[in-house]
Amino acid sequence: MRARPPVPRKALVKFKSVMDVELVQQLAADEMVCMAARVSTIGNTPQTYTREKNAGLINFLMRDRHGSPFEHGSFTFRISAPIFVCREFMRHRAGMSYNEESGRYRELEPVFYVPPGNRPLVQVGRAGKYDFQPGTFRQDLVAGEALRMAYTEAWTQYQTMLGEGIAREVARTVLPVGTYSTFYVTCNPRSLMHFLSLRTKSDGATYKSFPQVEIQMVADQMEEHFKTHMPMTHDTFVKHGRVAP
Amino acid sequence: MRARPPVPRKALVKFKSVMDVELVQQLAADEMVCMAARVSTIGNTPQTYTREKNAGLINFLMRDRHGSPFEHGSFTFRISAPIFVCREFMRHRAGMSYNEESGRYRELEPVFYVPPGNRPLVQVGRAGKYDFQPGTFRQDLVAGEALRMAYTEAWTQYQTMLGEGIAREVARTVLPVGTYSTFYVTCNPRSLMHFLSLRTKSDGATYKSFPQVEIQMVADQMEEHFKTHMPMTHDTFVKHGRVAP
Amino acid sequence: MRARPPVPRKALVKFKSVMDVELVQQLAADEMVCMAARVSTIGNTPQTYTREKNAGLINFLMRDRHGSPFEHGSFTFRISAPIFVCREFMRHRAGMSYNEESGRYRELEPVFYVPPGNRPLVQVGRAGKYDFQPGTFRQDLVAGEALRMAYTEAWTQYQTMLGEGIAREVARTVLPVGTYSTFYVTCNPRSLMHFLSLRTKSDGATYKSFPQVEIQMVADQMEEHFKTHMPMTHDTFVKHGRVAP
Amino acid sequence: MRARPPVPRKALVKFKSVMDVELVQQLAADEMVCMAARVSTIGNTPQTYTREKNAGLINFLMRDRHGSPFEHGSFTFRISAPIFVCREFMRHRAGMSYNEESGRYRELEPVFYVPPGNRPLVQVGRAGKYDFQPGTFRQDLVAGEALRMAYTEAWTQYQTMLGEGIAREVARTVLPVGTYSTFYVTCNPRSLMHFLSLRTKSDGATYKSFPQVEIQMVADQMEEHFKTHMPMTHDTFVKHGRVAP
Repeated sequence: MRARPPVPRKALVKFKSVMDVELVQQLAADEMVCMAARVSTIGNTPQTYTREKNAGLINFLMRDRHGSPFEHGSFTFRISAPIFVCREFMRHRAGMSYNEESGRYRELEPVFYVPPGNRPLVQVGRAGKYDFQPGTFRQDLVAGEALRMAYTEAWTQYQTMLGEGIAREVARTVLPVGTYSTFYVTCNPRSLMHFLSLRTKSDGATYKSFPQVEIQMVADQMEEHFKTHMPMTHDTFVKHGRVAP
Repeated sequence: MRARPPVPRKALVKFKSVMDVELVQQLAADEMVCMAARVSTIGNTPQTYTREKNAGLINFLMRDRHGSPFEHGSFTFRISAPIFVCREFMRHRAGMSYNEESGRYRELEPVFYVPPGNRPLVQVGRAGKYDFQPGTFRQDLVAGEALRMAYTEAWTQYQTMLGEGIAREVARTVLPVGTYSTFYVTCNPRSLMHFLSLRTKSDGATYKSFPQVEIQMVADQMEEHFKTHMPMTHDTFVKHGRVAP
Repeated sequence: MRARPPVPRKALVKFKSVMDVELVQQLAADEMVCMAARVSTIGNTPQTYTREKNAGLINFLMRDRHGSPFEHGSFTFRISAPIFVCREFMRHRAGMSYNEESGRYRELEPVFYVPPGNRPLVQVGRAGKYDFQPGTFRQDLVAGEALRMAYTEAWTQYQTMLGEGIAREVARTVLPVGTYSTFYVTCNPRSLMHFLSLRTKSDGATYKSFPQVEIQMVADQMEEHFKTHMPMTHDTFVKHGRVAP
Repeated sequence: MRARPPVPRKALVKFKSVMDVELVQQLAADEMVCMAARVSTIGNTPQTYTREKNAGLINFLMRDRHGSPFEHGSFTFRISAPIFVCREFMRHRAGMSYNEESGRYRELEPVFYVPPGNRPLVQVGRAGKYDFQPGTFRQDLVAGEALRMAYTEAWTQYQTMLGEGIAREVARTVLPVGTYSTFYVTCNPRSLMHFLSLRTKSDGATYKSFPQVEIQMVADQMEEHFKTHMPMTHDTFVKHGRVAP
């Protein structure tokens, strides 16, 4: 007695291999870092400083990990990514604010993550020290087909339940963690650097991190915006081993 | 050319309708609330007070929302719940610490959430003010079958990919948000009350909340432990409309 | 063998009765609250809404205490206030970032707080439920003289120690909590409302608060800026009893 | 028309050179770190591990800065220290909970900080990279006398105002930041390590810190308790350069 709705509501399942990261608003400037830092030494008598002085100060703050002056500002991003990426992202608590699309309040979209062709599929090494290698031709085929089959079946069953009048919050339990979701996140420059230090893999990092490729696809785009709006801060962040101050 | 492993690794898919909440450790006492609160008025000369005095003080603190004295202590829970519940849970940031099972570091277990028989399936009302009603016989059947089919297909494809040597972190993207996961969470009495105020539905609540039934199944068990270890605090929390101080 | 420096370095002690609050930068808009809130129901397809729709949504969010959409933005203030006010201020942790003038890194300024003429000096009632009444003529005189004498002596001894080459961080221990300090604070609209709910006294407040007059002198100025930049949010905050969402 | 109360209320000014740090309660164990960390790889099937395995795991977590497993536990300290130390302490926000003696709700005690004999009084170097040297005989004398004179005068004026019926919250503005205050602080092992990394000076530290001697007097005592209750964690913290994970 399996019930399928006569007319599928959203029939077309879409597969997607990229992460959308849009900078919605920002209030960020290297000068603000300096202004905040200098209150400790100049108190109630703000002055103007040269670009060189500012660069020197930011270098000192970053190197010696004086983090608080990097908190005066904010970046708001609008991100679309698979749920498993949202999950890793939202483990970041300090200095991070979130609002996300709700599977309780709306019918989700049939958009699912499929790894891009150059995504290495095979893991070598052990927990905490992974390396990845490209998949064989066969592995690529199997992964592609398995993902598409599971996603399609999940979507079909989701639609079946919705078609029968079952609540979205119950029906959505079949949707896979590869389903795309959209959220807003606001962070400050310091919490952004903390995020980047953990969610990017870099040879220049003092403390090596092994993020999943997919969250790095998000992080890399965020870092570009960070670099654009706070070039001095970003420079010294990279120079001092990507250790969040 | 669909590849299935000759011998399925974990063939038996399990369906589960309960949430496991275990109190792993706690350091919590009504007396500690009072001790911390009294430092503001007695400073460096601790004294002993009667049970009545303590009850009166806790009542005052809760009623007037003096929250900080409720932060000196901690509860650590070990919780097994579907991923969609973990997701809602981990949106709580302040005063909450988490460690969760990883789909990158281990092969997950084939345990999936199916609503218990008394779980209302039909949503009435609009966003922000929902009510739920029991499903019809047909809805119950459809939901049960749809969930099982989607879960089983997801697990099959997950196993297919693992059997081909594809990395866990790639294969897991097909697993639904109804898959069980396990995590440790540590909170303090204040952050616990904040959680309970949002994740339980109660007629006595000053600010109504409409949590999904499944996270309330977790919250209710946590509240029992809270009540056991901090009876006065819990009493006044309920008495003053379940508003976290 | 009391040593006073032959030429006092900063001889002129100043008395001050106001709090300086400057809005340095802000990224704040009622529309951003709505945009963030709506992601839960519209996902990845932003639309435009009327002012009325926005007002209705903000009213709903505030009334039912959906707080997270109010976190996407930031206000940075530069505040000069006596140390005892800074102390109360910096007890606010969540969503607050600080940098303050340092008594270790610089010689502080001889600026001290003296209550304005209309500041009530006499406390009536008991802990947690205070009221204040104006001082008598005599009380006004005594307070004025006592404050000035203590401040002047503290400054003299501070200068004495500095004149002898004693480190600032040692010498400053004699400076009273009425000494002015300057700090930057960055908060988001939600943490700002939380601050305002505790640091202003208002007949319309659902939960009464009894802040010290001096921190309310700061809070009132912050609230004006908040009102200017987020009028809808401020309106509903006041309307719903000044309970931070 | 200077008014002094005929009978001083608390005449005896006390000078103190130590910090009181009492461990009030703790829930802390190296095993809990391991248990929380292992959930990522073993999920819902806890097992027992040897001491060597645990030591190895903690070493790995600390070295690679996997910080979250160190958050499941808590230490509550009761600390008496001068206000300027409390001020530095309470700048720590994440994972820290406070309740402090209130100058609004009680009459403070006449206990003031005077540096111990071995406290170096002279600062050499520039902001961010200080060194300290012992004071000369003359400097010791001047400092001692200046502190005592300022403290005594502040106390006298405080008592004068209280004797006239002026509110505590007004009168206390003359009290110096060297006045002792008492507070409870609760932190978790991770936030404790973060505190220790910034508030102790150590040759073995990867990131050098230059805390004021007085807060290190507090931090050193806290570290002893930490070492006692979490010896493996403390060992690896020291071994890996005192960088909080």
